[in-house]
Amino acid sequence: MIKQWMREAIALAAEGAGRGDGGPFGALVVLGGEVIGRGWNRVLAEQDPTAHAEVIAIRQAARRLGSPHLQGAVLYSSCEPCPMCLCAAYWARLERICYGATAADAAAIGFDDGWLYRELARPRGERRMPMEQALRDEVLAVFRQWEASDRKLLY
Amino acid sequence: MIKQWMREAIALAAEGAGRGDGGPFGALVVLGGEVIGRGWNRVLAEQDPTAHAEVIAIRQAARRLGSPHLQGAVLYSSCEPCPMCLCAAYWARLERICYGATAADAAAIGFDDGWLYRELARPRGERRMPMEQALRDEVLAVFRQWEASDRKLLY
Repeated sequence: MIKQWMREAIALAAEGAGRGDGGPFGALVVLGGEVIGRGWNRVLAEQDPTAHAEVIAIRQAARRLGSPHLQGAVLYSSCEPCPMCLCAAYWARLERICYGATAADAAAIGFDDGWLYRELARPRGERRMPMEQALRDEVLAVFRQWEASDRKLLY
Repeated sequence: MIKQWMREAIALAAEGAGRGDGGPFGALVVLGGEVIGRGWNRVLAEQDPTAHAEVIAIRQAARRLGSPHLQGAVLYSSCEPCPMCLCAAYWARLERICYGATAADAAAIGFDDGWLYRELARPRGERRMPMEQALRDEVLAVFRQWEASDRKLLY
């Protein structure tokens, strides 16, 4: 079955890229033998920097199940996920990931995310994205308010 | 101005959490003195594990500008972004990030992402998310096809 799902993810990659929707990347989310999410890169089609194949497939799967958590589901992705998509997989509590091409293969055709993995591993102050802090106390007041509230839902 | 934008992001955090939409997190994207994206955590409201405040604000800003790239724009977030949101900021080419509470402050109220930063820094085979590879050659064939195509748009 792995090959079947991978071939469907690869077909989505080819189809989406053929339309000019974005890079040649496709993904499926499968749970219990059923495809519950499908996506291909639509960064250009939707003018959305987060519209990676994996994010789209995960969002669709979560909507379909009516839960942000997809325990037991597997992500089939034509390419090794970028760190944003890998985080989405963790937040969605996916069980595992099957991928085709590596990050290095993607870098070779112009989609490099190795630098981003390295960047995330750096301490906050050493990243190329400048980050400054302000009004921490006012946020902590909101955190306290939230902690005391009966709308406090952890997930 | 920093304080003004931060206070608006903090107000969104309080408002969204008060509605039970998700955790107490809000964010703004500002370009040239104008707010072009607003978001608060809607993971529960939308049953979407990627519906973090920053992702929503960035997606809205990109749609509004008609571009996945937001050069010169600044992200104001009530809390230090999780690695998924930080990646979204990089993919969107934001200029910088201003945040209120730290990741440690968020962890103290039950929203811990420190483990995810550590997880991403590990080599592929040492992560808790199992990852297996299949059909790389078939993906490379799609990459070759894409490279030869006139729909090849890099971004």
